[in-house]
Amino acid sequence: MEFISSKDNKLFKTIKKLKIKKYRDRENLFLAEGHKFLDFSKEPRYIILHEDSEYKFSRIEKFKCKKLVYSDTLFREISTQENSQGIILIYDFLDHMIKELGDNIVILDRVQDPGNLGTIIRLIDAVGFKDLILTTGSADIYNDKVVRSSMGSLFNLNINYMSQEDLIALLINKEYNILASGLTSESVDYNKVKLMGKNAIIFGNEGQGVSQNLLDLSNEIVKIPIYGSAESLNVGVATGIILYKIREILEDYEV
Amino acid sequence: MEFISSKDNKLFKTIKKLKIKKYRDRENLFLAEGHKFLDFSKEPRYIILHEDSEYKFSRIEKFKCKKLVYSDTLFREISTQENSQGIILIYDFLDHMIKELGDNIVILDRVQDPGNLGTIIRLIDAVGFKDLILTTGSADIYNDKVVRSSMGSLFNLNINYMSQEDLIALLINKEYNILASGLTSESVDYNKVKLMGKNAIIFGNEGQGVSQNLLDLSNEIVKIPIYGSAESLNVGVATGIILYKIREILEDYEV
Repeated sequence: MEFISSKDNKLFKTIKKLKIKKYRDRENLFLAEGHKFLDFSKEPRYIILHEDSEYKFSRIEKFKCKKLVYSDTLFREISTQENSQGIILIYDFLDHMIKELGDNIVILDRVQDPGNLGTIIRLIDAVGFKDLILTTGSADIYNDKVVRSSMGSLFNLNINYMSQEDLIALLINKEYNILASGLTSESVDYNKVKLMGKNAIIFGNEGQGVSQNLLDLSNEIVKIPIYGSAESLNVGVATGIILYKIREILEDYEV
Repeated sequence: MEFISSKDNKLFKTIKKLKIKKYRDRENLFLAEGHKFLDFSKEPRYIILHEDSEYKFSRIEKFKCKKLVYSDTLFREISTQENSQGIILIYDFLDHMIKELGDNIVILDRVQDPGNLGTIIRLIDAVGFKDLILTTGSADIYNDKVVRSSMGSLFNLNINYMSQEDLIALLINKEYNILASGLTSESVDYNKVKLMGKNAIIFGNEGQGVSQNLLDLSNEIVKIPIYGSAESLNVGVATGIILYKIREILEDYEV
């Protein structure tokens, strides 16, 4: 393992920039911080340890990639966490291209908050769906907060970015039953939603909800009733309630 | 409206410290940032405007409190947001003491993340429950991230902090049916949960879940099945799925 303490180190300068989307896209690399990421079989490009970090040889050695030890100063510059565990993995961008779409796909239309996006990625993985499409203008899946809050589920899904036009063409072409989450006068309650063989479920931006042209395309607009004084629910919570209801209905069909 | 530009202003020095829990507790005051808070009837102690902020006279004037205009430098020091809307309200602590508990109460056991806590407060308000008990060690409801993500629902709930011992005494004394969220070998699926006249539902810390002594006290431990590869769900998402299921069951009883 190589020890690096110079800020002029070429690789350090590259890695330091990966906090910014422009440089991630240029290098096709992203950061994932914490021991948790050693649990996944996905091979990183580099493993970077803090000079004082404790680690188990066996957990690190199973990966064939280059391992580096950074001085405290250098490590702090690339760490994104207040209480770092002293380990950062650098991964190549994931091979996320959707080749064949599953029967139930989730679409996020310009969801902006990285914490919400990561939480929803983890949720889609939990509920057993595989495909996520993000419209242009959504948060970046390689943002450090998305990576952290997805808890590794980023590695388990097929995720694609698409323009709204391409998405609309795809949904029509593949004949999906399109459901959108939204509070309109025509919305049906989430527990009365009608499913078909192939379903695409759309959730929208934190402030504005699902875009009008996607709402217009939908077979049903689905709402979660509000019983108290809140105006709406957080998009991660709403996605959880609706996707688990859909899973419940699908399981009932199978019985 | 008074214009303040001196860092030596006594009130400014007090308000600046309200970002820290210790000083909030000392002053019994907390910050809420953004126009949204003008929608609530709750009277603030002060309204602070950025010197360049746009606002409507009618939205501000309805409040009888003192209004202040801060210079850019001063405003930036108290703002907690990157893209501030140029308005901050200072409120007295809420009168949250629970006098009489409702039939369905929610308990959060050491939930740490302020974003999660705010999201859950908003959710409890949406699902139409009124009472929230937080065990000692939970995040502070007056943290700026909690205030922001609760979207005003903070004003609609009765919220109390309690030690685990006091909480246990209260639950036994009031004869609640106690449900805890957790993945154990004895857990029942969330959609098979048995409710009674009075139900207390406990959700736990992000990493460790509900404490063992609260699990031991529970009539049922409730789980959300995981169909894919994720290990668990975000606590806000899990709370949403379980509370809306409970609401669904309660609505069915009433029909």
